[in-house]
Amino acid sequence: MENIESLIIDIARRARTASLELATLETHKKNAFLEQLAEALLAQTNAIMEANAKDLAAAKQHGLSQPMIERLTFTPERIAKMSEGVRQVASLPDPVGEEIERMRPPRGFDLRKRRVPMGVIGIIYESRPNVTVDCAILCLKSGNASILRGGKEAFHSNMKLSEVIEATLVANDINPDAVQVIPTTDRAALNVMLRQDDTIHCIIPRGGEGLIRFTVENSRIPVIKHYTGICTVYVDTEAEPELAKSIILNSKTQRPSVCNAAENLLLHQEAGAQLPAIAKALHDAGVELRVDAAAKAMLTASGLPLVDASEEDFATEYTDLIISIGIVPDTQAAIDLINAKGSGHTDAIVTQNEATARVFLNGVDSAAVFHNASTRFSDGFEFGLGAEIGISTDRIHARGPMGLNELCTYKYVLHGRGELKD
Amino acid sequence: MENIESLIIDIARRARTASLELATLETHKKNAFLEQLAEALLAQTNAIMEANAKDLAAAKQHGLSQPMIERLTFTPERIAKMSEGVRQVASLPDPVGEEIERMRPPRGFDLRKRRVPMGVIGIIYESRPNVTVDCAILCLKSGNASILRGGKEAFHSNMKLSEVIEATLVANDINPDAVQVIPTTDRAALNVMLRQDDTIHCIIPRGGEGLIRFTVENSRIPVIKHYTGICTVYVDTEAEPELAKSIILNSKTQRPSVCNAAENLLLHQEAGAQLPAIAKALHDAGVELRVDAAAKAMLTASGLPLVDASEEDFATEYTDLIISIGIVPDTQAAIDLINAKGSGHTDAIVTQNEATARVFLNGVDSAAVFHNASTRFSDGFEFGLGAEIGISTDRIHARGPMGLNELCTYKYVLHGRGELKD
Repeated sequence: MENIESLIIDIARRARTASLELATLETHKKNAFLEQLAEALLAQTNAIMEANAKDLAAAKQHGLSQPMIERLTFTPERIAKMSEGVRQVASLPDPVGEEIERMRPPRGFDLRKRRVPMGVIGIIYESRPNVTVDCAILCLKSGNASILRGGKEAFHSNMKLSEVIEATLVANDINPDAVQVIPTTDRAALNVMLRQDDTIHCIIPRGGEGLIRFTVENSRIPVIKHYTGICTVYVDTEAEPELAKSIILNSKTQRPSVCNAAENLLLHQEAGAQLPAIAKALHDAGVELRVDAAAKAMLTASGLPLVDASEEDFATEYTDLIISIGIVPDTQAAIDLINAKGSGHTDAIVTQNEATARVFLNGVDSAAVFHNASTRFSDGFEFGLGAEIGISTDRIHARGPMGLNELCTYKYVLHGRGELKD
Repeated sequence: MENIESLIIDIARRARTASLELATLETHKKNAFLEQLAEALLAQTNAIMEANAKDLAAAKQHGLSQPMIERLTFTPERIAKMSEGVRQVASLPDPVGEEIERMRPPRGFDLRKRRVPMGVIGIIYESRPNVTVDCAILCLKSGNASILRGGKEAFHSNMKLSEVIEATLVANDINPDAVQVIPTTDRAALNVMLRQDDTIHCIIPRGGEGLIRFTVENSRIPVIKHYTGICTVYVDTEAEPELAKSIILNSKTQRPSVCNAAENLLLHQEAGAQLPAIAKALHDAGVELRVDAAAKAMLTASGLPLVDASEEDFATEYTDLIISIGIVPDTQAAIDLINAKGSGHTDAIVTQNEATARVFLNGVDSAAVFHNASTRFSDGFEFGLGAEIGISTDRIHARGPMGLNELCTYKYVLHGRGELKD
C-alpha cells in the first residue's frame, strides 16, 4: 500500500512538471509527435495484437461476456482506425493561446481572456483499450498532461500502447511524463490518485454509472461526469407526419446502444392521429412499445403488441430496442416531463410551428435541444468539434459534447502602462 | 437529525423547481424585483439593524475578535451601500440566452451555443451578512435559484434579510423558493446539503481555507473553490525603475488584507540595483522585509531592518504588511518559482521588453497574468464584469474573477430540417 501511494504521488508530480512544459509547446511539435505516433501504432500492430491476445486469453478464462470481449478485441483494422484517428487530431487547430474574449475594463487597459490547458487530466476508464490512445492524444494536443487508469481486462494492451506512446514522446523530445498509464489496476491506486488535488486538475471517468459514482464519491479533484442519456422526442400537434415518423425512427433505431439514442416518445394529445403510423414503423423495426394509458387507447385498434409503461419506464435508459410512449396535454407538460424524468442529455421537438419550438428549446433544461432533427446528432463530430473526449452531463465547465476546447481553461492576460489602484 | 435531513432535501427540491421557472423569467421581471429589493432594504433598515444587534450581542458574549465583530456589523451606511449594489446588478445586462458561439457543423444545420443558468447554486459563507444579499441577487439575475448557508454568527441578520428577500419575491410574483436561506446553522444540515447532487448543481464556498477544504472533502456536488492568493511581482532587468517601485508598492500596500495583494517580490539578479530604492519605499510604508541570501547581500548597506526569508515564506499568504523578497538568475527561474510556490491567482511582471513579458505571461500558470500593472486590479469590477461573486482559484468552469456569465452554463440549440443520421 505504501509503495502504491508513493508510486501514484510520484506519477502525479511528474505529470504536473510535464504539464508546465506542454503548456507552451509549439503546435508543430505536438503535431509532429502525433504524426509519428500514427506511424508507430501501424508499425507496432503485431506487438499490440500480441499484448491484446494475453488480455483476451485472461478474459475467456474469467468468463467475460461476449460483448465485453468484443469491446476488448484489437484487430489490424481497429488499430489502423486508431492510427487514422491520431492523424485527424494532428490536423485539428491548436486550441492553446486562442483569444476567447477581449474584455472592456473600465480603466481601459488591454485585457484578454486566452485559452490555456487545464494542466493534468486524469482519465479513468474501463475495457476498451483504444481509449488509452484517444484520450492521450486529445489531452496532449490541448497541452495537457494525462494520467490514464484503464481497466484490468485491458491491462496488457494498455501497457503496450503506453510503451509505444512513451517511445514516440522521447523520439520527439517531449517529456515522457506527459502521458502516463498507471502500471497497476489495484483499486488502492485509484483511491490515492483521486486525492492528488495539488497536482491533478480534473478527472474524467469514462465508463458505467458505478465507476462514475465511485469517482465522485471519492475524489477531491473536480470530476466531469459523463452519465448516460435518457433522450426524448416530442411530437407536437403541428408536426409534419413523415418528418415525425422518420425522426423518431432514426433517433430510436439507428444505433440503440448509445447515449444519444431516444428512449421516450411523447405526443401532444391532438397529434394522436399520427401515433398508429409511428408505432407501426417502430414495431416493424423491432422496437418493443411501452405505452401509457392514453397511448394504449389510441393504439388498441392497431393490433400492435403493447406493454404497459410504468412511471419509471420514462426515466429509464434502455440502450435497446424498447421505447416508452406517452401522451401529454400540451407542450409545457412535455417540457415538465422531460425536466423531471430525463437526464439532461439531448431532447428533440418535431413541429412546424417556430413559436412552439422556441418554447420547447428554452424550457427543456438539457445540454442539447433539437428542433426537427434526430437526437443521434448529439456528438462532437456532428457538432463540428473535430474530436470528442465524451459527452458531459455536467453543468460545470463543459456540457454536452467535449472537444479540445473543453479540455482547456483560460487565463486573463493584462497589458498595463503602470496603472495603480487608488 | 432526520428532521434536518428532510428539511434540507425539501429546500433543495423546491429550489430545483423554482430554478426551472427562473430559467425563462423575463429580464424586466428580474430587474423589477431587484429594484424593489433595493427599496425594501432601505425601508427595512431599522428592522435589519435590530436583528443585527442580536448577533452582535451574542458575538460579544462569545468573545469574538474585534475584526470578526467589525465584519458582522451593519450600519445604515452599509445597508445603503448594499441596496445600491442591488440596483447596480439590476442595471447589468442579462446573461441568459446570449449566443456564445455559432457552430459550423459538417452537415450544415443551424447550431448555436447559448448561455443558460446552471440551475441551483449553493453558497456557503461565514460571518459577513451582506453576502446573503450579494449572492442571492447575482444568482437570481443569472437565472439561478440559490440556497444560502451563512455562519452562525450572522444568523439573525441573515434570517431578517431572507424575510425581506422573500417578501419582495412574493410581491413580484416570483416563486419564493428562488432564494432560500437555510434556517439552521447545524453542521448536519451542511453535510446533507452537500449530498443533494440530484437537485443542487454547484457549490461555492466563500470563506477561509478550512471551510473550503471541508466542503471539497464532503461534497458530491461540483465545488468552485475560492482559495486565497499568493501573488508575486517580478521585476525584470529591463524594468523602468519608477514603474517597478510604484507597482510593487501599490500591489503590496494599497490593501494588504485581500487576496490580490502581492506577497512576493522577485528581482532579476541584474535588476539588483533597483532593490535598495524599492526596499526603502516598502519599509517607509511599514512593510516588513523578508529577504533571501542574495537580496540580503544587496540590502545590507542600506541599513534597513531585514528578516531572513525561509523557503516557506515564498509560499505564504501574509495578508499583512510583510513581503518576501528573492533574487532570481533569469525570467525562467521567476516563472518556475511562481508556478511552484504561488497559488495560481495573479502574478505580474514589470519590464519594458515585450518579448520578455510574453515569455512570462505564457509561462506563468495563473488565472491572471499582468504586464506593468498592479496585482490589485485582479477583480470583477476592474475586469469589467460588472459584479463579482468571487475569484475562482479553480481551473474548472471559471477561473479568476467570476461575474454573472460565470454563474451560467450553456446549451446547444439545433434547428434542423429533418436531418437523419446514416
